[in-house]
Amino acid sequence: MNSGVGFPTLGLVAWLCCLSLGSVQGGKVLVMPVDGSHWLSMKLLVKELIKRGHEVVVLVPESSLLIQGSDSYKTQIYKVPYTKAELDGSFDELREGAFLKPPEFADALINVERLVNFTKIQITDPFLPCGSMLSHMFSIPAVYFLRGLPCELDIKANQCPSPPSYVPRFFSGFTDSMTFPQRVGNFGMYILEMYACKMIYGHFDDLVNKYFGDNLTYKGLLSHGAVWLLRYDFAFEWPRPLMPNMVLIGGINCAKKAPLPADLEEFVNGSGDDGFIVFTLGSMLSTMPEEKAKQFFDAFRQIPQRVVWRYTGVVPKDVPKNVKILKWLPQNDLLAHPKAKVFITHGGTHGIYEGICNAVPMLMFPLFGDQRDNVHRMVVRGVAEQLTIYDVESENIVTALKKLINDKSYKERIMDLSERHLDRHVQPLELSVFWTEFVMRHKGASHLRVAAHDLNWFQYHSLDVIGFLVLILVTVLWVSLKCCLFCTRKCCRIGTAKRKSE
Amino acid sequence: MNSGVGFPTLGLVAWLCCLSLGSVQGGKVLVMPVDGSHWLSMKLLVKELIKRGHEVVVLVPESSLLIQGSDSYKTQIYKVPYTKAELDGSFDELREGAFLKPPEFADALINVERLVNFTKIQITDPFLPCGSMLSHMFSIPAVYFLRGLPCELDIKANQCPSPPSYVPRFFSGFTDSMTFPQRVGNFGMYILEMYACKMIYGHFDDLVNKYFGDNLTYKGLLSHGAVWLLRYDFAFEWPRPLMPNMVLIGGINCAKKAPLPADLEEFVNGSGDDGFIVFTLGSMLSTMPEEKAKQFFDAFRQIPQRVVWRYTGVVPKDVPKNVKILKWLPQNDLLAHPKAKVFITHGGTHGIYEGICNAVPMLMFPLFGDQRDNVHRMVVRGVAEQLTIYDVESENIVTALKKLINDKSYKERIMDLSERHLDRHVQPLELSVFWTEFVMRHKGASHLRVAAHDLNWFQYHSLDVIGFLVLILVTVLWVSLKCCLFCTRKCCRIGTAKRKSE
Repeated sequence: MNSGVGFPTLGLVAWLCCLSLGSVQGGKVLVMPVDGSHWLSMKLLVKELIKRGHEVVVLVPESSLLIQGSDSYKTQIYKVPYTKAELDGSFDELREGAFLKPPEFADALINVERLVNFTKIQITDPFLPCGSMLSHMFSIPAVYFLRGLPCELDIKANQCPSPPSYVPRFFSGFTDSMTFPQRVGNFGMYILEMYACKMIYGHFDDLVNKYFGDNLTYKGLLSHGAVWLLRYDFAFEWPRPLMPNMVLIGGINCAKKAPLPADLEEFVNGSGDDGFIVFTLGSMLSTMPEEKAKQFFDAFRQIPQRVVWRYTGVVPKDVPKNVKILKWLPQNDLLAHPKAKVFITHGGTHGIYEGICNAVPMLMFPLFGDQRDNVHRMVVRGVAEQLTIYDVESENIVTALKKLINDKSYKERIMDLSERHLDRHVQPLELSVFWTEFVMRHKGASHLRVAAHDLNWFQYHSLDVIGFLVLILVTVLWVSLKCCLFCTRKCCRIGTAKRKSE
Repeated sequence: MNSGVGFPTLGLVAWLCCLSLGSVQGGKVLVMPVDGSHWLSMKLLVKELIKRGHEVVVLVPESSLLIQGSDSYKTQIYKVPYTKAELDGSFDELREGAFLKPPEFADALINVERLVNFTKIQITDPFLPCGSMLSHMFSIPAVYFLRGLPCELDIKANQCPSPPSYVPRFFSGFTDSMTFPQRVGNFGMYILEMYACKMIYGHFDDLVNKYFGDNLTYKGLLSHGAVWLLRYDFAFEWPRPLMPNMVLIGGINCAKKAPLPADLEEFVNGSGDDGFIVFTLGSMLSTMPEEKAKQFFDAFRQIPQRVVWRYTGVVPKDVPKNVKILKWLPQNDLLAHPKAKVFITHGGTHGIYEGICNAVPMLMFPLFGDQRDNVHRMVVRGVAEQLTIYDVESENIVTALKKLINDKSYKERIMDLSERHLDRHVQPLELSVFWTEFVMRHKGASHLRVAAHDLNWFQYHSLDVIGFLVLILVTVLWVSLKCCLFCTRKCCRIGTAKRKSE
């Protein structure tokens, strides 16, 4: 699963063993990453762990998009039953789908369908639940590194409360403050989610059953996660309950900054007071149909800003002079440049956090999965404008860009958001390393695991207790009633008998 | 309210104003402390804030037990309708009560009754809700500094989930892992709590109504707390849900260590391999009935360890040579000494955290309020033994002390607990300052406030939504049924008419 799919996913860091308490120098770490841009941020943690003296082994699939061998860590390549070409083909299908307009009402369903189609190739591997299964098989504590799982499976597996009355469901398009009809909709989605989950995770459950017997589900496996490193915070997400083993590391990807290459520095510096625009659609999507690209070229022709665009598609002859096309660009370094005015992005969380860190207003084109929700969060906060990629036209692009640049309130609000996000006593990378080592030092840190894991759904909500108390109440009422009736009859009979004898 | 009462209580730090974002040098802080030992740990935060350049004003009641003027911060003395003698008298009553054995079943009720009696003197002031009221009156963000409020009012006011299926209620004596009968008991207490709360906080609600109108309750006032600095962590408490604005600062009181005075150092060093015992019953309780004290003297006569005892009561002529009696003792510094073997304590959270920080097994005599629950947490973790003060005899004391010293598992377990507690990336004092300044920098940090605050109980649990959906379902079923009946009748009539015409 990867960021091109825009779908929240799971990465696993699991401990093979750990040495003495107090010092975890020489701890052994097995890393089971998930492909795509999600690996890019997990790699930061892996590199930091190596720097601190841990022995790290990364499991790399034979056919992979972004995970590769490295000199800085050991890798172990494992076979997969699909070729690189098949993997790329699967992504291409997703990419192409992103530019077709789906019927409005079917958005959510199509998202789920694409997801299920996409996970099939991984399931055959099996790709996603592999880390959790390894951790269970070898009884080694697992540290999860993720943005979130579909159906909030991560939240559910970790027994974290998530009341549908103020926590908007994925794909709902609601905020944390809902009207009554919205709450009805959100609750409906909460119920539907239970069934969607079964569909999405059915394959994984089968696989888990196959290896560990019928009593375990994928959710059950995940519930043993020692610590959850979550790539968000409350600058991005709406506030909601947390558990003691949930650590927020949103923005882990935007700490490192490097100077720009000389030619790029010259190009963006030459933009004068008008500044420049950074345009990418994520690490997985660098091309688009020619007709679409034309709309963007036409739009950029009409604005005074310069544009740095990551684009590998067909380049027309008359590319405007203010546009620089690159096959790859240093996104975070560009956004950190003081002349950066707008960030055109698809709304993956990595990109969004780079926008927030550097306080650059965004023009957003959500493509797949969670991106629509991500974008919604930014638009509601007044730091972004949103357009749809399948019916975009040059006029809309120009209008949106002018609005973002000329209306200073976008910049002010994103500066506020940025300040809130950056105001922390420990940097996200440092925090991830600390909690990873914490799990090693405390042999799985089971003291952070809530006892709710030992209860079933019925017990958790005290429904058995309530049932029992109601039963007692009904019994007491019934017995009292029977006693009263019995006494009344007795009295009546005695009365009747007395009257008869008189 | 204070630690002598052992009752969890509230302290308020509220901001009068804050200056530029990014820098909070020169922030103005109004401090409304609560009397007793709780002030001792809040004072650490106050002093640190002053050190960092904030202007702090502490409101000090005219008659107070521990809050006094200081050269290091400004104070503002306010009148109270009770004298120091009356305040002391109120405490004496509580102290004496602690040594009388209550009937077992009435423990919880007596705790509540003592509490209500004790708060009366504060209510007249009004003492406890004063900070929240000031913060509301002047619209300044409030930072709360506390261990917890009775009936979990802090948790409830902050909309933090606390499922009775695995979060044991105060005074229940249960752990987070409960049998079915225990869960029934816990649920019963959860329901009773709702009524107990009304009794305990009724006075406060009246007062809040008097000043701010009928629409506001004390809980409503508290719900605006920007950040909650909570004096516990999961080395002490069982893991449970948290909210984004809850910051755990357990152990804030045991960071500072000083060398022992020369005579004390000589005494404890002279204890040889046997080591020594530290004995105090908290900052508010330094004496006990002579008969009780005799049991302790007799016990100490029979053990090889030396004893340092904070005791201001009647000293008998034949004090054993291994016992050193002091009117005050540097508790944390003594516990930090490598020869400290056992800590005899009443189980206030300050003392417990000093025991945990320094990894010293404890012999515990719970006296009032939350102490029974605190002690229970330590006994269940296998790092302490518990005795009751009202029927204690020298033999039990000796047996318990020998067990704690000779059975090495107590020491091993408290060392584990201590390691878990001390393993943190930011020290609790630093954390408190950071979050306090965070509230200043972000003008109340309302982005951490959950939207659940805008919902009533019914809406929060989606009961209106469920009711609505059930109504729709019933209506649809009813209409369908009616249609069927109507059609059936129509068909029958046509059939009958046909047959007749035939």
